Amino acid sequence: MPIPSDVLSSTAFPLQRFDQQGVTTLTMSTPERFNALSEAMLEALHDALADIADDSSVRCVVLAAEGKAFCAGHDLKQMRANPDKAYYQALFARCSEVMQAIVHLPVPVIAKVQGIATAAGCQLVASCDLAVAARSARFAVSGINVGLFCSTPAVALSRNVARKHAMEMLLTGEFISAEQATEWGLINRVAEDDALDEAIKQLTSSICAKSAVAVRTGKAMFTRQLAMPLEEAYAFAGETMACNMLAEDVGEGIDAFIAKRLPRWNHR
Amino acid sequence: MPIPSDVLSSTAFPLQRFDQQGVTTLTMSTPERFNALSEAMLEALHDALADIADDSSVRCVVLAAEGKAFCAGHDLKQMRANPDKAYYQALFARCSEVMQAIVHLPVPVIAKVQGIATAAGCQLVASCDLAVAARSARFAVSGINVGLFCSTPAVALSRNVARKHAMEMLLTGEFISAEQATEWGLINRVAEDDALDEAIKQLTSSICAKSAVAVRTGKAMFTRQLAMPLEEAYAFAGETMACNMLAEDVGEGIDAFIAKRLPRWNHR
Amino acid sequence: MPIPSDVLSSTAFPLQRFDQQGVTTLTMSTPERFNALSEAMLEALHDALADIADDSSVRCVVLAAEGKAFCAGHDLKQMRANPDKAYYQALFARCSEVMQAIVHLPVPVIAKVQGIATAAGCQLVASCDLAVAARSARFAVSGINVGLFCSTPAVALSRNVARKHAMEMLLTGEFISAEQATEWGLINRVAEDDALDEAIKQLTSSICAKSAVAVRTGKAMFTRQLAMPLEEAYAFAGETMACNMLAEDVGEGIDAFIAKRLPRWNHR
Repeated sequence: MPIPSDVLSSTAFPLQRFDQQGVTTLTMSTPERFNALSEAMLEALHDALADIADDSSVRCVVLAAEGKAFCAGHDLKQMRANPDKAYYQALFARCSEVMQAIVHLPVPVIAKVQGIATAAGCQLVASCDLAVAARSARFAVSGINVGLFCSTPAVALSRNVARKHAMEMLLTGEFISAEQATEWGLINRVAEDDALDEAIKQLTSSICAKSAVAVRTGKAMFTRQLAMPLEEAYAFAGETMACNMLAEDVGEGIDAFIAKRLPRWNHR
Repeated sequence: MPIPSDVLSSTAFPLQRFDQQGVTTLTMSTPERFNALSEAMLEALHDALADIADDSSVRCVVLAAEGKAFCAGHDLKQMRANPDKAYYQALFARCSEVMQAIVHLPVPVIAKVQGIATAAGCQLVASCDLAVAARSARFAVSGINVGLFCSTPAVALSRNVARKHAMEMLLTGEFISAEQATEWGLINRVAEDDALDEAIKQLTSSICAKSAVAVRTGKAMFTRQLAMPLEEAYAFAGETMACNMLAEDVGEGIDAFIAKRLPRWNHR
Repeated sequence: MPIPSDVLSSTAFPLQRFDQQGVTTLTMSTPERFNALSEAMLEALHDALADIADDSSVRCVVLAAEGKAFCAGHDLKQMRANPDKAYYQALFARCSEVMQAIVHLPVPVIAKVQGIATAAGCQLVASCDLAVAARSARFAVSGINVGLFCSTPAVALSRNVARKHAMEMLLTGEFISAEQATEWGLINRVAEDDALDEAIKQLTSSICAKSAVAVRTGKAMFTRQLAMPLEEAYAFAGETMACNMLAEDVGEGIDAFIAKRLPRWNHR
């Protein structure tokens, strides 16, 4: 799903949306600013995610980026230019809304990571449902290096990796490799740099080959049940699954499975 | 603890129980149906676990299976033959009860996995306290392939492995190897296929060599404390440990340790 | 930060404190008793941690030990000599207080592990924010071997490693290597035995090079947000970060970053 660079350079809008066969690719497109989460970028992400939430044609989302960085986190110059607590409160609230919009989006979001993903950029990766990175990609929560502990990134990071790994990254601000990120659970897979597109396509194709109702059901229930005690989670999951069973797709899916043929989904 | 195949083939009962020196082996024995969790299998598991819960002679349980599959999850044909929401609600509620009966059983349950463990079959593995798999075993939560997101399996799976690993398995429905399952924390150990019995025996022998009261105390407290905030967990664990200290076995255990001899447990 | 052995042997006090350039090293110094958490050791740790909590000159703490063991857990002889429930309740409550004092200390605590870390000794490691071990170090929660399930250690351990890994250690009481502990997330890094000092120094130097206010902010927020639901965690983290932004250090940190020079922190 590469977007021709002349299209990108012809606009000042920081985020490009590209739709193809159910896969919506959002590409952060301010490479000269390392795709920093400026006010404009956060607004663009917020609006794009809101649009996708209402768009039944979208089957999954790829969050990608242009240039040498996936995303370098907040826009430090912009922040420094607004030395005001109310400004910071609003900024971090907005950013947290965007991260939670990813978590609560009705369809899966896959981070496609190249270059560096730092601070809130690393948080974006942690907030996605799945993540694939180029082998040369690197990850850090590096706010501590400028005196600003990555508190909101810590929320997402600590729900992805073990406690001591999260603390090491947060306190040292040091980079970890894509391979390390895979071992720790921050990302799913590493691809060779020139095979990143292909690795993403493999995941999106897999998801698009599934029943849309099953994928949406699953994404919605997964995060909710995680926050529940075991018994409550089972009650909720059982009810969810009983409803899922009544979808036309399941009848077709089971019939196809028993007949050893490919299913023909109703909701694609 | 292999069960002679003539015993198995002489009965229609889907689950075999075999007791030997404190180790109870439950063997799912409908290999021709990939040990699917049919109504009959769920009832058999439910009843066997209820019996074990009241049986003070049992020190630990091995959940095993016959044939090419450990367990392929729900019985899709049976489900398809009952296209009724109330039926599904009751079925998933029953299945969730069985999974929680494993979690709440007074003694540890070890999954002994060969072949494939899919959907609710993978959930069984995740619900056990410990799991050892043959190197050729494979794991998937594959309901998504028939249009049915593995919602109840997700409850157990997401309490075993990191979030992104769980989402990858749930959304793609793809198999992971026994080695991958070990790295992700879904199982404890991989054994060569012909050394699986031996690997299980090593674990059961280790557990049977311990004080029964200590093992039962531990299994009961472990899951409960996990659901508590830190301070509450410590208060509960401290009280549990003070009670445990008053058991005869501990006096003997410490005396034996200090005297550098083997302990002679009261409760075996 | 080695402490001359003549200083150690000249005193009966079980814990040595050594301060150097913001790094406070607490060295458990009863090697002949494997640094067991006797009443005296627990009191010494409790008091030392309380002092550090009020000491703004401390930037981070290293919890170290002398001799062949890091810490072998509770003092079994002392426990056996006091066969009284109220005694055990008080002992475990005190120990749990010490563990939580590490978790709630305003500055990071790094475990420096050599030799064995067993039972409550392993819990100490799990309770620290970071941990580095010598390659020959080994870890176990071995109370089960004397009939006493490691209930309070389980609280810390199960918040560090995956559920099945924790259960395996707790039920078998067997040792795991430093390498295994790293893979499971119980510790951060393994160092060759003769490079342990250097590996610790690398971490403490990294932390001491950061803004003190950022490190303290982060340590305090990290554990709190972990216990919160996602939305609440984000609200708390956002507010924390907005306050952190108002610290002088952040202005200096960002200015230095933009100017590509080293920051000069106000609070070191």
